[in-house]
Amino acid sequence: MDLREQLVKLTEIGIALSSERNVNNLLDLILAHARNFTSAEGGTLFTREGDKLRFQVTQNDVLSEKLGSGNTGKYLRDRTMPITKTSLSGYTAATGDVLNIPDAYAIPATAEYHFNDEYDRRNNYRTRSLLVVPMKKMDGEVIGVLQLINARDGKGGIVPFHAEYEPLVLSLASQAAVALNNAMLTHDLKQAYLDTIMRLAIAAEFRDTDTAVHIRRMSLYSAAIAEAMGYTADGVEQILYASPMHDIGKIGVSDRILLKPGKLTDEEFAEMKKHTTIGAAILEGAEAPVLRLSYEIALAHHEKWDGSGYPYGKKEADIPISARIVAVADVFDALSSVRCYKPPMPFDKAVQAIREGAGKHFDPACVAAFDKALTRIQSIYREYSDESGAKHKLTGAMPALTRP
Amino acid sequence: MDLREQLVKLTEIGIALSSERNVNNLLDLILAHARNFTSAEGGTLFTREGDKLRFQVTQNDVLSEKLGSGNTGKYLRDRTMPITKTSLSGYTAATGDVLNIPDAYAIPATAEYHFNDEYDRRNNYRTRSLLVVPMKKMDGEVIGVLQLINARDGKGGIVPFHAEYEPLVLSLASQAAVALNNAMLTHDLKQAYLDTIMRLAIAAEFRDTDTAVHIRRMSLYSAAIAEAMGYTADGVEQILYASPMHDIGKIGVSDRILLKPGKLTDEEFAEMKKHTTIGAAILEGAEAPVLRLSYEIALAHHEKWDGSGYPYGKKEADIPISARIVAVADVFDALSSVRCYKPPMPFDKAVQAIREGAGKHFDPACVAAFDKALTRIQSIYREYSDESGAKHKLTGAMPALTRP
Repeated sequence: MDLREQLVKLTEIGIALSSERNVNNLLDLILAHARNFTSAEGGTLFTREGDKLRFQVTQNDVLSEKLGSGNTGKYLRDRTMPITKTSLSGYTAATGDVLNIPDAYAIPATAEYHFNDEYDRRNNYRTRSLLVVPMKKMDGEVIGVLQLINARDGKGGIVPFHAEYEPLVLSLASQAAVALNNAMLTHDLKQAYLDTIMRLAIAAEFRDTDTAVHIRRMSLYSAAIAEAMGYTADGVEQILYASPMHDIGKIGVSDRILLKPGKLTDEEFAEMKKHTTIGAAILEGAEAPVLRLSYEIALAHHEKWDGSGYPYGKKEADIPISARIVAVADVFDALSSVRCYKPPMPFDKAVQAIREGAGKHFDPACVAAFDKALTRIQSIYREYSDESGAKHKLTGAMPALTRP
Repeated sequence: MDLREQLVKLTEIGIALSSERNVNNLLDLILAHARNFTSAEGGTLFTREGDKLRFQVTQNDVLSEKLGSGNTGKYLRDRTMPITKTSLSGYTAATGDVLNIPDAYAIPATAEYHFNDEYDRRNNYRTRSLLVVPMKKMDGEVIGVLQLINARDGKGGIVPFHAEYEPLVLSLASQAAVALNNAMLTHDLKQAYLDTIMRLAIAAEFRDTDTAVHIRRMSLYSAAIAEAMGYTADGVEQILYASPMHDIGKIGVSDRILLKPGKLTDEEFAEMKKHTTIGAAILEGAEAPVLRLSYEIALAHHEKWDGSGYPYGKKEADIPISARIVAVADVFDALSSVRCYKPPMPFDKAVQAIREGAGKHFDPACVAAFDKALTRIQSIYREYSDESGAKHKLTGAMPALTRP
């Protein structure tokens, strides 16, 4: 491939990398493109975390044939190493310089950096040529290192990496750095968003629900049902974000009614039902898709398929699908978990109760999806049991609160 | 510049575009790079909204000399046009094809598209060559159109756009499309996040605060003070996101105390003070910077500079700076707005009260920043007056609620 073709390819790679917003997919994609671009047999991608490098991905055509893909760098997973100039990737991370090494075993003893042959020894592999490239952002910050191993000559031989291509690979690594930085920022923002929604939703329900895990569980059940109904990954994520706010309107119901022990009078129950319309009023008129969904869910999650629910007695397809999904998840969680006034219903009995509600309380399609997702539902049920609160970071702080 | 240099430049542009995350800056940058790349005297960038094209930016070196920059496309601002094949940009948006037109006034009458000379007539300008390029995402979707006007030959003449560069410009436009799409998604996500925080914070304070605008105003005051203290744009944004949650802990204070008319007993006041530690418990242990900030603020916004505040009687630099900022904003808003038990203090008198609190209740540096930001504070005060609730979309729904 001549230089012009390489350059054209480089811009195409830039577009492909920028288009991938999932961090894990992006890491794989960066290394694959860099290897393909340089005809490298293998490679490793490290990201920088403060004064450390974290191993992220390794790929190796020769070893994956021998060991099966995914196994070539297993021992490295979750490993970090300090950034010092004595290792090759550390040197590049510290200096921002490219290292183009014809033979890993012929590095002069006078060099600051040394080749670590652990990978070779463990895998019975022979590293020869190496190209170690910094992933630099626009401002010059190194956010990762690409280490490419064994350039192929196309005739079965291993050759040094072509010096002429160094600036191109550096450019590829910069495009990768920007794409990765963007994807990580988006990921962090989404995590912060989800964490915030969860915390505020938990706080809002704090007066009448014993444990914070209810919100967590209910939203995970909802997402599992949505997935089983064929929602896209984005759609599932939106249900996950929107469902925690289903009972947000309880904030507008007075302590006297919300915390009353025993049965509510008709008049009190009428007040209690208002949490649906109050929730809708809180979430009304938003532009964000996730809040529009929350609005639907808050308003309609107590409607029933046969029209016997509240606040409007809507039925079947007049109830938004999001609310029909959450109705199943919410009732299932209420049945299967402990409340101050009742013991938990055993898992299988609660599942049976949901099945029996199909066509009456629930949309039969949502119940079918619930059934389809039962393995996932059960693992959520187990992981987030009522006693597990403390082990989940998000909800760890909540038991310290004293209820009013 | 030869093709190789052009290609190198193209990858640099790709990196520059991907690095810009502010949508408005990015729109300007895309057009500027595309014009520079093609030596175009002027250009216009449209984005697609459903079946319409929205005018976004126009740049023209000749007209900006004559009219002053920023005035060259003024009449176009906020204008949209339907996507039909009869206009040049509409044709490109609809078909995804590049149009390379040597002379705008010599388009054959048999062509599907026509040149609209309104811009030329209004500005006494003469368009000759045109290059109209679709901004295509990876999946082929056209999300905008770049219209480049009058290629310069470097000797003062206008020439047709070089056909050889068409694929390069198309590639540049694709890089731009991906960057723009990413920036818009991030923008939408941030908006959704802010909207959600605001709504939930408003809901949480709903029991004891008359109007939702308090939260809105208080967070804007806090951001204005942070800005005057020299915070970066990111830092200001974080204060804006974090401050609405300062009183979230009131959710854990019972109606009996929170809604009691008249003075609280010592014991009741001790309960009331717990809203700081309850808020901190809700927000504790989060990873997201904005939530860590909310935690600090919730816990310490009632501490005072001289150590006479609560919950811990911390003083001076022991109080997080975020909480010192919010303390000023919160007290100023409480003073200057109406409450069910008091009329509002006039603006100037409330400002005076803040100044008098410097070194006692408040950090003198925060009061100085408050003073420095006074013009901005006053415009927030005016725009979000207690009576203005209905005009702000976010809070429009809130007055419909009935308080418990």
